[in-house]
Amino acid sequence: MDAWRTGLVDARDGQIRLRGYDLTSLMTHGSFTDVIFLLHRGELPTPAERRLLDAILIGVADHGSGAPSCATARLALSGNRQSVSAAVAAGILAVGDDHGGAGSGCMEMIATGLARAKTESISLDEAARRIATEARAAGRRLAGFGHRVHTTDPRTGILFELARQGGVAGDGVAFVEAMERAIAAIVKPLPINIDGALAAVLHDMGFTPVFGRLVFIIGRTAGLTAEVAEELAREKPMRIRIPVEYDGVDPRTLE
Amino acid sequence: MDAWRTGLVDARDGQIRLRGYDLTSLMTHGSFTDVIFLLHRGELPTPAERRLLDAILIGVADHGSGAPSCATARLALSGNRQSVSAAVAAGILAVGDDHGGAGSGCMEMIATGLARAKTESISLDEAARRIATEARAAGRRLAGFGHRVHTTDPRTGILFELARQGGVAGDGVAFVEAMERAIAAIVKPLPINIDGALAAVLHDMGFTPVFGRLVFIIGRTAGLTAEVAEELAREKPMRIRIPVEYDGVDPRTLE
Amino acid sequence: MDAWRTGLVDARDGQIRLRGYDLTSLMTHGSFTDVIFLLHRGELPTPAERRLLDAILIGVADHGSGAPSCATARLALSGNRQSVSAAVAAGILAVGDDHGGAGSGCMEMIATGLARAKTESISLDEAARRIATEARAAGRRLAGFGHRVHTTDPRTGILFELARQGGVAGDGVAFVEAMERAIAAIVKPLPINIDGALAAVLHDMGFTPVFGRLVFIIGRTAGLTAEVAEELAREKPMRIRIPVEYDGVDPRTLE
Amino acid sequence: MDAWRTGLVDARDGQIRLRGYDLTSLMTHGSFTDVIFLLHRGELPTPAERRLLDAILIGVADHGSGAPSCATARLALSGNRQSVSAAVAAGILAVGDDHGGAGSGCMEMIATGLARAKTESISLDEAARRIATEARAAGRRLAGFGHRVHTTDPRTGILFELARQGGVAGDGVAFVEAMERAIAAIVKPLPINIDGALAAVLHDMGFTPVFGRLVFIIGRTAGLTAEVAEELAREKPMRIRIPVEYDGVDPRTLE
Repeated sequence: MDAWRTGLVDARDGQIRLRGYDLTSLMTHGSFTDVIFLLHRGELPTPAERRLLDAILIGVADHGSGAPSCATARLALSGNRQSVSAAVAAGILAVGDDHGGAGSGCMEMIATGLARAKTESISLDEAARRIATEARAAGRRLAGFGHRVHTTDPRTGILFELARQGGVAGDGVAFVEAMERAIAAIVKPLPINIDGALAAVLHDMGFTPVFGRLVFIIGRTAGLTAEVAEELAREKPMRIRIPVEYDGVDPRTLE
Repeated sequence: MDAWRTGLVDARDGQIRLRGYDLTSLMTHGSFTDVIFLLHRGELPTPAERRLLDAILIGVADHGSGAPSCATARLALSGNRQSVSAAVAAGILAVGDDHGGAGSGCMEMIATGLARAKTESISLDEAARRIATEARAAGRRLAGFGHRVHTTDPRTGILFELARQGGVAGDGVAFVEAMERAIAAIVKPLPINIDGALAAVLHDMGFTPVFGRLVFIIGRTAGLTAEVAEELAREKPMRIRIPVEYDGVDPRTLE
Repeated sequence: MDAWRTGLVDARDGQIRLRGYDLTSLMTHGSFTDVIFLLHRGELPTPAERRLLDAILIGVADHGSGAPSCATARLALSGNRQSVSAAVAAGILAVGDDHGGAGSGCMEMIATGLARAKTESISLDEAARRIATEARAAGRRLAGFGHRVHTTDPRTGILFELARQGGVAGDGVAFVEAMERAIAAIVKPLPINIDGALAAVLHDMGFTPVFGRLVFIIGRTAGLTAEVAEELAREKPMRIRIPVEYDGVDPRTLE
Repeated sequence: MDAWRTGLVDARDGQIRLRGYDLTSLMTHGSFTDVIFLLHRGELPTPAERRLLDAILIGVADHGSGAPSCATARLALSGNRQSVSAAVAAGILAVGDDHGGAGSGCMEMIATGLARAKTESISLDEAARRIATEARAAGRRLAGFGHRVHTTDPRTGILFELARQGGVAGDGVAFVEAMERAIAAIVKPLPINIDGALAAVLHDMGFTPVFGRLVFIIGRTAGLTAEVAEELAREKPMRIRIPVEYDGVDPRTLE
């Protein structure tokens, strides 16, 4: 088998370098968030980029034990307390389009919208109106907008303010705000939620859509590990029994 | 990297042979259960062995959507409907010592008990009494005994009857029955449950303890895939929200 | 939380019934393949259906340790020998569109093709020609056709013969054969492979496309568990070290 | 079903508080590492604790694509490129006693050693000598010592220096250093490696042994996500084919 090629880790001579930087130097001077940025982008972040990535990772770390990711991890542990790896992995497996996936979905919409504004020579507002109109006609939900509780999502305000202060806010933030206006006019008022906000900011920081999903996984691992540790410390094996009601066929016998 | 060595699948010349048998011959003449036996043991089963392995796989296939394995698969799917692999894998991750693990635990106890009867030159009943006495003193549960609902587990009767009819029942069944008597005398009456029964029968068929756990995973995959298919067909994304009550510290502010 | 509703398992009164049938009756009289069919379809299979499902499960059970699913399971075990659940689950996670996913992809194409023949009032051959022509124009591969080694796949012959003998072969088999002719005429001769064959047969047995992927997972679990057991028995922890070549940036220092 | 109780996340009124702190305040002022510490310990870290946890997370983030965790993630992706969750989860499943588990193993040994020094009224050096002597007699490896390449592990020096500078170093560091001396005297010189070093420091920061494994999972997720992103960007599906050599029984035929 040919050797795999990688530009991430250089481990020749027993010394480990991440993207060219010696691991022990990074341990002494860097933050974990620096290294997340470095591994994914190949360069260390500016202070503004670090601040934003920290805010995003914190913003998705844990929203409650009942969310699919955290609840899946606890349920797996309930039957299998010998492996915390298995429980954390099970939690990550609940991350998909419907849970933790709106960020990457919205990043794809931003890329599409900006490309369209350019190729069709229209304003961001017009591109947003066209996308909102088409989504409404197709009955398709737009990732990154709407919230079960809030009419404005406070985390969105935080991220956009940090992005503006740091000089990071660009086309991504502008387009998501144009989409919010277009959706309000064409569908109904739906606030930019945390997924829409982090999508805009990650776009403006130069990340590709797949990172929208990966950043959720990285941030959520902080919460998943804490949920797993709490379950181990406070609860007994097999304590979780989901109530079930059978509504299938009546008893019958094999001939 | 050196090639991996394996005695399972021979795929030279594009023809596939499992343990020496041509795959297309097995497809024409064998049952899936035959091939499970073949892959794990290197030989095809006798009719009695096939009947018993079928009964064991069926016996663990699915006991209800609320069990940790099935509920974990459904919860993972609730957030991530794009990947049925992820949901089935999450379900398998809930299989551990407390769920699906009693079979292998009991197989280890059988091996220990039989070895002890031999090395200490005592009867199976005496070996069983010593193990039950020690477990009671240590406050340790014995895997394979006791049932939440039944005073006798009907599945145990089925397996032991099939094992006797087929001439498979041997020391394993005898020792588990000795353990049942010893536990009744020393602790309290606890019936041999499905895990204890399948452990005894698998031991007498020549399987090693790890197969006690693997057979649960194989059989349960039938149920997990059906649970996943039903969840996809009947339910909406994010439909599962576990109720949570916070009992931690009061709100506080960052200085 | 409301109870979950299910039509699969009825566990009231401590007695377990799968789709209405008592578990102990199934253990006594049924095969594992019967129960896989029952759980997914709600009825027991006819002898011809059982024979075909056995053949399909056997056909995908294991094609070699180096395939992504089996190799992933072995690699996971190399670092984590304490949890066979984790290793089997890791193996299942390698099942996707590119590995084990062609069956469900082909089942979707069959459903599309048959619907198109009906709504466009054209023959199956004409529908097949249109689909092959469009795929060629789009540079899209057609799931279920082509083989790295064979010019005809012997497993396809087996499945189709069993399907014809059993009176199961119908529109699905006919359409896949029409596709084979159309592809040969329009693109180049590509044999119906195991994925295309099982897709056709599962379609004719009334299964939905998602089962095309689930049946691969069920069958492959037989192989994954055997690979895991062989790895545990024959190999040491951490024995697998993939050779890696770094081709990233040169060493640099933090300012 | 009763509500689950948790002290981690308070999500009443749609506002999210982690361990009492408002999520938006943490997003504005905290680092991701602060929140990892907070979720696991219930308090924010001191600057010295933050520095050490950053160093530990960075120290385990990625040691190369060929390690079981990273290679497992890449292999899973090779067959299943549709789900990055599945690939990252597969990578985490390779974390166990033999890969990423030495930290928690060493933390357990530290706890045992310190308890023993106290109850047997002996010095740390004497406790270390007894443990090293017993391990040698039993042929048991001691987690946290030895390195394939280095005679001293540079990451250990970094962590211990940071721990001393920050006033965090205590009994844990002292005991691991006593173990290093005892092992050198009784077995052979084996340096404290990164696992031993992080175990000592995490012990002195007040973490329990299970966190030794969880911190590896959190840190490694940075690397796993980067490996997955690089694999997606640079490589094709199914590009990985592990070479396999069959050494099982010869071809045979079904009677």
